[in-house]
Amino acid sequence: MTSSTAPDRGTLLILNGPNLNMLGTREPGIYGSATLSDVEVLTTAAAKAAGFSVSCLQSNHEGVLIDAIHAARGTAVGIIINAGAYTHTSVALRDAIAAVELPTVEVHISNVHKREEFRHHSYLSAVCSVVIVGAGVHGYELAVSALDKALA
Amino acid sequence: MTSSTAPDRGTLLILNGPNLNMLGTREPGIYGSATLSDVEVLTTAAAKAAGFSVSCLQSNHEGVLIDAIHAARGTAVGIIINAGAYTHTSVALRDAIAAVELPTVEVHISNVHKREEFRHHSYLSAVCSVVIVGAGVHGYELAVSALDKALA
Amino acid sequence: MTSSTAPDRGTLLILNGPNLNMLGTREPGIYGSATLSDVEVLTTAAAKAAGFSVSCLQSNHEGVLIDAIHAARGTAVGIIINAGAYTHTSVALRDAIAAVELPTVEVHISNVHKREEFRHHSYLSAVCSVVIVGAGVHGYELAVSALDKALA
Amino acid sequence: MTSSTAPDRGTLLILNGPNLNMLGTREPGIYGSATLSDVEVLTTAAAKAAGFSVSCLQSNHEGVLIDAIHAARGTAVGIIINAGAYTHTSVALRDAIAAVELPTVEVHISNVHKREEFRHHSYLSAVCSVVIVGAGVHGYELAVSALDKALA
Amino acid sequence: MTSSTAPDRGTLLILNGPNLNMLGTREPGIYGSATLSDVEVLTTAAAKAAGFSVSCLQSNHEGVLIDAIHAARGTAVGIIINAGAYTHTSVALRDAIAAVELPTVEVHISNVHKREEFRHHSYLSAVCSVVIVGAGVHGYELAVSALDKALA
Amino acid sequence: MTSSTAPDRGTLLILNGPNLNMLGTREPGIYGSATLSDVEVLTTAAAKAAGFSVSCLQSNHEGVLIDAIHAARGTAVGIIINAGAYTHTSVALRDAIAAVELPTVEVHISNVHKREEFRHHSYLSAVCSVVIVGAGVHGYELAVSALDKALA
Amino acid sequence: MTSSTAPDRGTLLILNGPNLNMLGTREPGIYGSATLSDVEVLTTAAAKAAGFSVSCLQSNHEGVLIDAIHAARGTAVGIIINAGAYTHTSVALRDAIAAVELPTVEVHISNVHKREEFRHHSYLSAVCSVVIVGAGVHGYELAVSALDKALA
Amino acid sequence: MTSSTAPDRGTLLILNGPNLNMLGTREPGIYGSATLSDVEVLTTAAAKAAGFSVSCLQSNHEGVLIDAIHAARGTAVGIIINAGAYTHTSVALRDAIAAVELPTVEVHISNVHKREEFRHHSYLSAVCSVVIVGAGVHGYELAVSALDKALA
Amino acid sequence: MTSSTAPDRGTLLILNGPNLNMLGTREPGIYGSATLSDVEVLTTAAAKAAGFSVSCLQSNHEGVLIDAIHAARGTAVGIIINAGAYTHTSVALRDAIAAVELPTVEVHISNVHKREEFRHHSYLSAVCSVVIVGAGVHGYELAVSALDKALA
Amino acid sequence: MTSSTAPDRGTLLILNGPNLNMLGTREPGIYGSATLSDVEVLTTAAAKAAGFSVSCLQSNHEGVLIDAIHAARGTAVGIIINAGAYTHTSVALRDAIAAVELPTVEVHISNVHKREEFRHHSYLSAVCSVVIVGAGVHGYELAVSALDKALA
Amino acid sequence: MTSSTAPDRGTLLILNGPNLNMLGTREPGIYGSATLSDVEVLTTAAAKAAGFSVSCLQSNHEGVLIDAIHAARGTAVGIIINAGAYTHTSVALRDAIAAVELPTVEVHISNVHKREEFRHHSYLSAVCSVVIVGAGVHGYELAVSALDKALA
Amino acid sequence: MTSSTAPDRGTLLILNGPNLNMLGTREPGIYGSATLSDVEVLTTAAAKAAGFSVSCLQSNHEGVLIDAIHAARGTAVGIIINAGAYTHTSVALRDAIAAVELPTVEVHISNVHKREEFRHHSYLSAVCSVVIVGAGVHGYELAVSALDKALA
Repeated sequence: MTSSTAPDRGTLLILNGPNLNMLGTREPGIYGSATLSDVEVLTTAAAKAAGFSVSCLQSNHEGVLIDAIHAARGTAVGIIINAGAYTHTSVALRDAIAAVELPTVEVHISNVHKREEFRHHSYLSAVCSVVIVGAGVHGYELAVSALDKALA
Repeated sequence: MTSSTAPDRGTLLILNGPNLNMLGTREPGIYGSATLSDVEVLTTAAAKAAGFSVSCLQSNHEGVLIDAIHAARGTAVGIIINAGAYTHTSVALRDAIAAVELPTVEVHISNVHKREEFRHHSYLSAVCSVVIVGAGVHGYELAVSALDKALA
Repeated sequence: MTSSTAPDRGTLLILNGPNLNMLGTREPGIYGSATLSDVEVLTTAAAKAAGFSVSCLQSNHEGVLIDAIHAARGTAVGIIINAGAYTHTSVALRDAIAAVELPTVEVHISNVHKREEFRHHSYLSAVCSVVIVGAGVHGYELAVSALDKALA
Repeated sequence: MTSSTAPDRGTLLILNGPNLNMLGTREPGIYGSATLSDVEVLTTAAAKAAGFSVSCLQSNHEGVLIDAIHAARGTAVGIIINAGAYTHTSVALRDAIAAVELPTVEVHISNVHKREEFRHHSYLSAVCSVVIVGAGVHGYELAVSALDKALA
Repeated sequence: MTSSTAPDRGTLLILNGPNLNMLGTREPGIYGSATLSDVEVLTTAAAKAAGFSVSCLQSNHEGVLIDAIHAARGTAVGIIINAGAYTHTSVALRDAIAAVELPTVEVHISNVHKREEFRHHSYLSAVCSVVIVGAGVHGYELAVSALDKALA
Repeated sequence: MTSSTAPDRGTLLILNGPNLNMLGTREPGIYGSATLSDVEVLTTAAAKAAGFSVSCLQSNHEGVLIDAIHAARGTAVGIIINAGAYTHTSVALRDAIAAVELPTVEVHISNVHKREEFRHHSYLSAVCSVVIVGAGVHGYELAVSALDKALA
Repeated sequence: MTSSTAPDRGTLLILNGPNLNMLGTREPGIYGSATLSDVEVLTTAAAKAAGFSVSCLQSNHEGVLIDAIHAARGTAVGIIINAGAYTHTSVALRDAIAAVELPTVEVHISNVHKREEFRHHSYLSAVCSVVIVGAGVHGYELAVSALDKALA
Repeated sequence: MTSSTAPDRGTLLILNGPNLNMLGTREPGIYGSATLSDVEVLTTAAAKAAGFSVSCLQSNHEGVLIDAIHAARGTAVGIIINAGAYTHTSVALRDAIAAVELPTVEVHISNVHKREEFRHHSYLSAVCSVVIVGAGVHGYELAVSALDKALA
Repeated sequence: MTSSTAPDRGTLLILNGPNLNMLGTREPGIYGSATLSDVEVLTTAAAKAAGFSVSCLQSNHEGVLIDAIHAARGTAVGIIINAGAYTHTSVALRDAIAAVELPTVEVHISNVHKREEFRHHSYLSAVCSVVIVGAGVHGYELAVSALDKALA
Repeated sequence: MTSSTAPDRGTLLILNGPNLNMLGTREPGIYGSATLSDVEVLTTAAAKAAGFSVSCLQSNHEGVLIDAIHAARGTAVGIIINAGAYTHTSVALRDAIAAVELPTVEVHISNVHKREEFRHHSYLSAVCSVVIVGAGVHGYELAVSALDKALA
Repeated sequence: MTSSTAPDRGTLLILNGPNLNMLGTREPGIYGSATLSDVEVLTTAAAKAAGFSVSCLQSNHEGVLIDAIHAARGTAVGIIINAGAYTHTSVALRDAIAAVELPTVEVHISNVHKREEFRHHSYLSAVCSVVIVGAGVHGYELAVSALDKALA
Repeated sequence: MTSSTAPDRGTLLILNGPNLNMLGTREPGIYGSATLSDVEVLTTAAAKAAGFSVSCLQSNHEGVLIDAIHAARGTAVGIIINAGAYTHTSVALRDAIAAVELPTVEVHISNVHKREEFRHHSYLSAVCSVVIVGAGVHGYELAVSALDKALA
């Protein structure tokens, strides 16, 4: 878990879930050519510009993601989460987000509504504040903007 | 349909569907206190800042919305649409969006996933590029940002 | 939209939706031989007897019905609506009724529960106060009586 | 089973099903403060005014309700029934109503369409003439009016 | 609404619904390159050859289509309707067709059964006499032939 | 509960459920003109011919039917049951039949498969030995024959 | 197709469908030890006793069964059919039975309601007069009795 | 309804529903060999040890169970209910429990989740405080313990 | 399989499925009084007029229909198929049509959308070019016209 | 039905169902270019290598396939079946396989799970020992290997 | 994993799943104010009183929970598990419980039946012995009592 | 993760998911008596015989399995995966397999189609090349054979 030094509005937790470490490599027709590192760099830049520091984590382990969300309670002021496939199957992540009571933005790089039926339902959306779908990696910047507003 | 004078990157069609004329009045606990006029002002400002002019239309008539989308072909470069309740019932709006082949962003002010089951499905999402849900009226600004990227 | 002069308890909006202009002509075995004009006359009489004026509108256009409901905010004290087929398909009408926060009675002339499965579900019932089904055109008089009580 | 003396248009059977003996006590936020006795008094008054006598029965026993409906054949001219929870589960009551071939009005005090999904379906509606939902205890008076018309 | 002068077997109402004004432009891979005007010309020719005059109307407004169907009662002898997306969502159009009791042919240019699941169901088919799917614009000529037989 | 004197192969319990007391009166187009008494007479005759005595009971009360089934344990050698509408809704009757472990024949006078969808499912069939549908009142004689075989 | 010489009340077609040639061999725990030949012998005996001749056919071919039903029109007075697995999948057999308009009894040796879910639905029941389930091979004798009554 | 003399913390209503009178006899492989009397004795002992008196009732009649629940209002301080098969079908029992507003524990002797699909849903659970499944007759003692805590 | 001598545009395979040999006899209220022979005569005439020869086959055997479709590869230029009840149940026919890659028109004499729910779905439509429903036996002539266009 | 001469471990029945005679011709993108003859040759070789003789049959007729399975009882020691489209629709084939109680391997050349929803369900899998999907024609060799093990 | 020293009846594994480390902090309106530590202390005390030692583990990682269950085989005599959100999604946990064949009690602190639909189904219940829902943290003590009985 | 030294055709990743470490111990009636070690030994032998080295991993952690699949990109030439219960619930594993674009064979030791309904659906099958079900541990050898062909 890499962590930039904080300006002064607090830290945003940037969580990426399963298979997002493959970004840029995996099915570029769907996900584009930016890598996870690119995503974290551009999100960090956007956060800094808005006065936030960031803490970035990617994991393929549901439990690790849950642990990170719990750890955000008291240490972060907001969460941006792209839970990848766990979006559609994880009630545990949903409960974790609900438990820490931080403004949370759900991001999906691709437009999940153009894909398989089972990708149309998210267990997370109902406990997030904002959902941003299909804007590519730019969606993370939009998410920062949404948290910027929510935390104003 | 009010229309600002255009800078130089072309016009964005800003469409608001049924009951959005009641914004600010209707269920402020869900939709907030900004009025439709406020929405159009802030969206116009964001668009201008990005070099776009805008053409704004609100209607409670499905047919008027379809006509406006058709008219955008050749006159606008992108669409931002909050189709309100027609989101969940209108295949005709979906076909109109598909027909004009312009980058289109679907916006919902409230987080529809926290509401009734029938609001969880959108006929439009699969033919839009981007979907932004729950960011309040700021969602329109995010939509402008998304089109700014898409049209870059 | 015809409008009787008002007594003193305010105006009731009497809305009839698609195909109700065909009343008396269309499938009299189901709907009876009274015409829309007959319905409006008897409803007006009942309303007057209860001290209300009425404003009557029939339209086959969903958007026109929504516009009329919006206009009732501040000008009417209650609504009687027979939304015809839009009952089963229009979330937009539901949202309009919810938005204006007036006591509203949903009326169906025929007993929809004896007909096709898709006529058994109403998007409107959950946002109306009262639902009256199968009482023929007398149902409009019962609706006036219900509003008379609700507004007492 | 209390029974008023009859004027001359015959008797209406007023049937109340399970838990309606708790009226006034049970969840007054949903059902209001009128008691079952209040309901029977006001219904009797409305019936008398229309020239009917009434026979009132409340029971928590499905079989008792069925027996009463059977007994109405030849002794009553119409039925008003609020079957409470049996509305949603009793095919046997439906068959009883169909068997006696009397005009029957189904009444619900609360608006069942605002409540749990399983309360949206009625086994009785398709064999009743009229359905009145959400008008509070006034719904029984509307039911008398509907039978008054039906038996004119 | 353009209207040819009538031969002697009466008028056929040729109704085209939402987005059919985009014909030839919209997704030509699905709908082909003929325009709406081409469709109306060839249908008129086929009708004339069979001794009918035609009245052609296209609208994106559900209410306008309903009004036109109502107006056909007494002025037309049959209807050809391609209701586009309203096919799948409009109970109101279904009721309008049932109300006017004219022989009606439902036409779809593309084979809707090769497309999305929600396009496989038509609210109109059960109240039309004949359904013709996937024959391209030639389907309108087949529809004239079907009415020619039905009205013989 | 009437009871014939027993020959020597033991007693058959003949149970008729809700509304079957209306037999002959109720919807004769569906159920025929034989009365419940006729059914009991012919079933008794068939049973006697096969060497059984019978115990006949009809009730509209689910609990009474359950009590009777329980009482059959140790006093009867088989059961013929037409549970009427309880067939489709009563898990309690199903459990009662399973509990007493007697060969049981389910009878329906009309062909339930030609009627409403909800009459196509029986909670009882899976715990009965034999099911006889649509043979009219003769079905009871067939049921006696089936028990005759089963108890041979 | 074997055929006994006819007494005088006409011929019953006894049809057995797929896998019933395996009777006695196949899963005797479910179907018993009687063979198809045993079934045909006992059915023939019962039919003769009632004054009918029989024509027996077993086939694993859906088309052969349909042909046989068609051939029964004009040559037989009733049908007994155990369609085996085709019961659950064949609309074509259903249509054949409906087409010949003869009283038809559907028989199943085992109690299909105790088995897999997909065996609980029969396409045939709604076009047969009588359905007899779970009575073992004796069910064929009951079927003869039912036809005896129906043809009385 | 037997009733022990009360210590001082008030009375618990111990309700057993349909077929539980068969306990010990009925399917002992599922329900064990303890009888209803055994259950009532052990529950009474547990209640007394906790300072409660008990009132025990078993009935196969849904209406009797409802009546007993109503009677508990004002006379009992808590309810333990094993509604047997009515668990899965009775909205009326659910409403009765909700109406009396007493802490209520739902008990099932067997593990219903190992049995048929239709036994997995309980209408009662959502209006009970606690649900105890599969602990055999010991479940009643656990239920007393749960009420002991709830009423502490 | 009868076969007319060919003009010069090649042969059309005219396939009729189960029960269509009963045409004219079977339920004339639904299917009309024309016989299968009438259908084949009128289709042959239409085909000849358009320059095609025909090869006609009716069978109640799914396998025979599949064999005929296979045989059409290389010998016919198009197929008209009324698969009767197999329309709703046969994936094998669907695969056969897809395998031979010939333009195929699906015909239904009656309007299947006015009939039972299970007749509303066709396994064949998605692999046919054109579907014609409800035009009576004239539908075969329309099918010839559709192939005439498709093969032009 | 061709049959190789037997070595000494007995005969394997190799059954191919509808449309598999088109192999190599039909949709080679899905099924590859090997013909049915190729499949039978390679399967025979694999079987011989394992000490089995084979009996090969392809038919488009469900009844013929059932007959062949029945005939395998006592003459074959195992079955390899690719039932093509009947996989998804034939309960009769399922029953035939269950009836003969031979180890049976279900083979599909293409990966049916990548295709239409209705191809994801097999009526046969639950009565087969082994299922091999998507291995192309090599799947038949794998099937021989599986039977080699099962019969060891 | 903390482990108390064992008395003599063996060890109970006390497993708590995802988000239960947040107990006392997370949504106290639903889960109460007791912490996980409180739960482990009270469960240990109850276990000791019954003669068991305990081994307590909480993890947000599905795999860790599975590993712990496997490790219980041979080292523990029973399991108490509150699997949190994995209850509703984890077939793997279900299989682990089934694999170790130890008496297992499923506990939920809140009454899941009062919450979202997706919390009403448990993959675990069918492989557990006992299920205790809604008794708050006292449920763990009841679970110890249930295991005390089961292991007696 | 143990890894044999590689011959020359590259490495096969052999992945076993949750509870497969219990093989031989867990429910041997379903899974047989071979242990995981036996499986790995026989698969390694088969792979070596075909010229492949293998890398074997078993884990109960979904994230560990995903990590291993990612690591296979560039280091392995094919994958054999028995994902155990994750087969039915893990979209994340599906995405991982799709991301690495290696030929993958899905194996299940038992015939999942004979077990609970929820085991009939696999999220993985649609992204695997081949699926082998029910062949016991021999299925791994068949999987090697399938990869041998696929990589030839």
